[in-house]
Amino acid sequence: MANPGGTERTKLNRISHKASHDVSDLYSILDDNLVAHVGLVQDGRPLVIPMAYGRVDDIIYLHGSSGSRLMRLLAEQPEVCVSITELRALKVARSTFNSGMHYRSVVIFGKASLVSDADKDKALSAVSNAMIPGRVQEVRANTKKELAATIIISLPLDECSVKISVNEIDDDEQDLNKGTWAGTVPFISTIGEPIPADEEAAGLEVPESVKRLSKRS
Amino acid sequence: MANPGGTERTKLNRISHKASHDVSDLYSILDDNLVAHVGLVQDGRPLVIPMAYGRVDDIIYLHGSSGSRLMRLLAEQPEVCVSITELRALKVARSTFNSGMHYRSVVIFGKASLVSDADKDKALSAVSNAMIPGRVQEVRANTKKELAATIIISLPLDECSVKISVNEIDDDEQDLNKGTWAGTVPFISTIGEPIPADEEAAGLEVPESVKRLSKRS
Repeated sequence: MANPGGTERTKLNRISHKASHDVSDLYSILDDNLVAHVGLVQDGRPLVIPMAYGRVDDIIYLHGSSGSRLMRLLAEQPEVCVSITELRALKVARSTFNSGMHYRSVVIFGKASLVSDADKDKALSAVSNAMIPGRVQEVRANTKKELAATIIISLPLDECSVKISVNEIDDDEQDLNKGTWAGTVPFISTIGEPIPADEEAAGLEVPESVKRLSKRS
Repeated sequence: MANPGGTERTKLNRISHKASHDVSDLYSILDDNLVAHVGLVQDGRPLVIPMAYGRVDDIIYLHGSSGSRLMRLLAEQPEVCVSITELRALKVARSTFNSGMHYRSVVIFGKASLVSDADKDKALSAVSNAMIPGRVQEVRANTKKELAATIIISLPLDECSVKISVNEIDDDEQDLNKGTWAGTVPFISTIGEPIPADEEAAGLEVPESVKRLSKRS
């Protein structure tokens, strides 16, 4: 069961960020972002791979581009650390030291499993839905060959931590009232106009799933 | 010396992404992004920490929020894997299997070092300049106490790989001309209006460094 900050290594002891124990914060960060950085140990050394992911209840499914290598690695060493970071704003303080970034982040620890053939279709839909909700229903079903070529790993949200920046500038007292500006500069992410892939697509209406993406952003 | 893709573990063997051996691509991805996911090994298990970073020539300087823990860890096990990923567009194909994301990414392997006291000021400026170019010149100098409390690690770009998506939809022949749309949906990142931190800042002009950020985006 998802229990953010519930174990020794997920307990936060810094004060400049808010540790959230709220499952809705965990879900919101996971559902609003698209890429996870997955850490593994390979021959005693760290390896970090960016992967697309999707969440179903208290499990995330991860889909990468380096399938077979990953499969070999996980067979030897299933322990992973998954980090998802959403930058929200630049924190421009009255000193370099107090400046930085506001962000929301999740770190998940656990043992990853390869998704079985029986569950691959569901897992692939979860990853697809996380990117483009509803797209699965607009396209043909996956073929057996495609599913066989797909490697997806699953990770339960049992051990995780959630950090949300407190949106404040924490300047030192002595830096105030000396004529130096301070504030935040928000990062804004939007979705651009869809670009058809070819002549056939150019002659078709943009599908509902893609139209909804633009409205959401 | 930076030599993208020059070693066995940085050589790419997938065709859906372009492996770049061009140092200017490496620099461009590093200079256009703000967060690095740093993988370490702790007690034989992986740990991934998001960190701000800045580049000076063929070195990146990384600055995290969990200083002392990181210092202990690196003393035991200096090997790191640093992953920087920039999402550029959704790739909406005519099947779930062929859909995905276009991105640019860098992975760097190497041994991280703690930046010495003598070099900390320069390293902190590099990280600050990566976030807000020119801000260092607008604020007071760092104090000795601040520098002592700062932990920055450095990593040479000696062993790294660079991936840049080929911006194409690679649908199967048999999925074409069946009335299914395909295309790309660009992600657009912009900078919002600066928000003053307090009454003092609200009465001051927005500094040049912050104004330039909005122009750049």
